[in-house]
Amino acid sequence: MKTTFMGASTKQGYEIAAKSREIVRSLIDEKTKNLTPEERSIVERIVHSTADPEYADITKMSGDFVEKGLEAISKGKDILTDISMVKAGINKYSGNINCYINDERAIKLAKDQEITRAAAAMELAACDGFEGVVVIGNAPTALWKVMELVETGSMNVKAVVGVPVGFVGAAESKKALHETSIPNLVTEGPKGGTPVAVAAVNSLINIIR
Amino acid sequence: MKTTFMGASTKQGYEIAAKSREIVRSLIDEKTKNLTPEERSIVERIVHSTADPEYADITKMSGDFVEKGLEAISKGKDILTDISMVKAGINKYSGNINCYINDERAIKLAKDQEITRAAAAMELAACDGFEGVVVIGNAPTALWKVMELVETGSMNVKAVVGVPVGFVGAAESKKALHETSIPNLVTEGPKGGTPVAVAAVNSLINIIR
Repeated sequence: MKTTFMGASTKQGYEIAAKSREIVRSLIDEKTKNLTPEERSIVERIVHSTADPEYADITKMSGDFVEKGLEAISKGKDILTDISMVKAGINKYSGNINCYINDERAIKLAKDQEITRAAAAMELAACDGFEGVVVIGNAPTALWKVMELVETGSMNVKAVVGVPVGFVGAAESKKALHETSIPNLVTEGPKGGTPVAVAAVNSLINIIR
Repeated sequence: MKTTFMGASTKQGYEIAAKSREIVRSLIDEKTKNLTPEERSIVERIVHSTADPEYADITKMSGDFVEKGLEAISKGKDILTDISMVKAGINKYSGNINCYINDERAIKLAKDQEITRAAAAMELAACDGFEGVVVIGNAPTALWKVMELVETGSMNVKAVVGVPVGFVGAAESKKALHETSIPNLVTEGPKGGTPVAVAAVNSLINIIR
């Protein structure tokens, strides 16, 4: 038996998580009926984490997202997050989880290039030879940078969870990602954020555990 | 001039944040017109962080929340979070930010008492002499425990940001908190979570910086 279920590790936590999953299923059953079991499990966890059934409508995955994401995760490839909060939420991964947002080099690079720190952090990861799954829960600028780095062959990305949040540029960046050939999970529109990003990745990790 | 604005620290980040704040204001202006400037600022930041204007309808503060919260924050009192993700998001505070969820003692206490780790973590904080602002973004069980500890005089709580998320018990726990005499910020219904909790506290911190 797995020792955790949707983040719960005690009998009480497990009961709450199981009851929640049941409620979530009843709320989004119809909307998720055309998804694969793995995709459905990811969407359920996102709705569980946000208590917002709208995510069943706006969460979109490329056809190869689950396959490529699981492949990378099961090989223990690195995970790269845009902000520390996202990193803090991925708490059952045996591989490396990197976040360069507070790295002195990212801060300098952002100033020098007049870009955001989140974007600079992606560039830094590419320079450090990153290979794995990128998880962006906050910054559209980081997502644009990843697409650029992949396009120019400067970053080895296996899959991207791209769910930046906000009214300025987030929706556009996610739409652009979904139109690339990078295996991806996105949310349509301004909504997204840390819990969505974390739920998607933890769900992948949970499938292979 | 403040060196950050809504988490942004570069010119590019600042511009995005400023534009976002403008859009947020236009979306929720009517709904927040009866709030004080500080309360309004908190709600704006929550909507900015979630890209979900519904938070302008469901975020409720007790009349003394801003005053008591600011008083504690300006004195550098401790902040106690239920989960690491919330702690990771509070990144400009000069005081201590504690989180006991992964503390071995909390894990043992949870097993012994058959409670969740999040609840055990609150009990542990009380034993350690915690005094300050409690920030709960995830676990209703932690929130119930805090109310119990305050009721029995076992915990010195100045204010509570109580925004646990989920379909099981979250709404009830927040309703109960809002009916206590503890200075509080809550969200009505199942919605809430890490970004909401973090936005509320960072907004308070930002007011005094």
